[in-house]
Amino acid sequence: MKAYVFPLSPNARKVMAVAAHLDLPLDYQVVDLTKGESRTPEFLKLNPNGKMPVLVDGDFVLWESNAIMQYLASQKPNGLWPDDAQVRADICRWQCWQLSEWMPACGPLLWENLLKAMLQQGSPDGKVVQNAEANFLRTASILDQHLAQRDYLVGDDVTLADLAMAAPLEYAAAAKMPWASHEHLQRWYARIDALPAWQKTKPRMG
Amino acid sequence: MKAYVFPLSPNARKVMAVAAHLDLPLDYQVVDLTKGESRTPEFLKLNPNGKMPVLVDGDFVLWESNAIMQYLASQKPNGLWPDDAQVRADICRWQCWQLSEWMPACGPLLWENLLKAMLQQGSPDGKVVQNAEANFLRTASILDQHLAQRDYLVGDDVTLADLAMAAPLEYAAAAKMPWASHEHLQRWYARIDALPAWQKTKPRMG
Ligand SMILES: N[C@@H](CCC(=O)N[C@@H](CS)C(=O)NCC(=O)O)C(=O)O
Ligand SMILES: N[C@@H](CCC(=O)N[C@@H](CS)C(=O)NCC(=O)O)C(=O)O
Repeated sequence: MKAYVFPLSPNARKVMAVAAHLDLPLDYQVVDLTKGESRTPEFLKLNPNGKMPVLVDGDFVLWESNAIMQYLASQKPNGLWPDDAQVRADICRWQCWQLSEWMPACGPLLWENLLKAMLQQGSPDGKVVQNAEANFLRTASILDQHLAQRDYLVGDDVTLADLAMAAPLEYAAAAKMPWASHEHLQRWYARIDALPAWQKTKPRMG
Repeated sequence: MKAYVFPLSPNARKVMAVAAHLDLPLDYQVVDLTKGESRTPEFLKLNPNGKMPVLVDGDFVLWESNAIMQYLASQKPNGLWPDDAQVRADICRWQCWQLSEWMPACGPLLWENLLKAMLQQGSPDGKVVQNAEANFLRTASILDQHLAQRDYLVGDDVTLADLAMAAPLEYAAAAKMPWASHEHLQRWYARIDALPAWQKTKPRMG
């Protein structure tokens, strides 16, 4: 299987971490987003949205990182995605929430406080940052509360839900995400950060 | 199983259409969003995001409409969610895309051209509508292209992917979604609209 990724991206990391955790050999093809490589005619044939990650398995072309995570996890029995309808629905809930609430909460801070400088797009917009911080605090509190009495998002061990949610937090400090008061979230992230699959897929800058 | 829904909402419709299609008896509890009923302390205990739909099955409380669709479809064998890893990943891809791209494309038009008037929140903002139309056209084209050679989003029959994607299009005319030139999308929507489960769950205004 071939995976098109820009390894610095949290959405690529989700896929790479699952492959590393399950020891699935993926043939990685780097799509350099800073060079517009996701918008070439050939890439748009793989994904008309012009976005990575994309997985290619024979004739089957799959995009959307959460769907790729599930597909990889379907390759062998494993604890990341236990074969039980209720557990899978629970994992799917958090993957959906990651798309509908969590990325919109983290994304603007990633852009304003980190990517703008990296891509020489000017300095952070104070008003946007202020709104983004308020939204981050509100959204992160939902995770923090959920993690107050548990070590992982679903059940007693790491699942796809944790790997999906953890991805943007790699940049929590660099993007100045205001999570100082979210201690349960921080403890949980430290737990994910300690996983060999997380360490192996740590983005290397420069 | 109990389902908390505001039946006019596309996100509630997704759940209701699956239940109707599979003939699953759900005990519906209306959450009147116009009266703030999703923000009461009791409701926030069910879903800290303060949003419906929510499904309750004994001790299991599930939110996020796409996850609820999958959970309902796991109750009995059916064609909406065939038990094949590749097909399910494909369906999941479109459900994810519905969250990440499609709702953000339809949502602003729903708000500006329909909900604002319904909720007496003033008139549409021309600049916002213009941007929203451009984004809708771009996003709808991806669906239109995909549907050019096929009758359904995944495989040869209706799946969860179709029901998820069709939901906001109920309001295509009322919200002035500019889909006149997307003929494949329109043909496909007519196909979904003709399903008994879609007819049975048609929102009734007033
Ligand atoms: N919902 C998608 C989002 C993927 C996405 O946003 N990818 C971005 C980088 S994080 C991308 O490839 N952007 C390149 C572009 O827009 O040209 C997923 O979860 O896979
Ligand atoms: N991503 C969620 C979105 C649910 C959602 O946005 N629900 C809205 C209505 S469409 C809601 O209940 N809003 C009430 C509120 O925010 O108070 C899903 O797919 O279930």
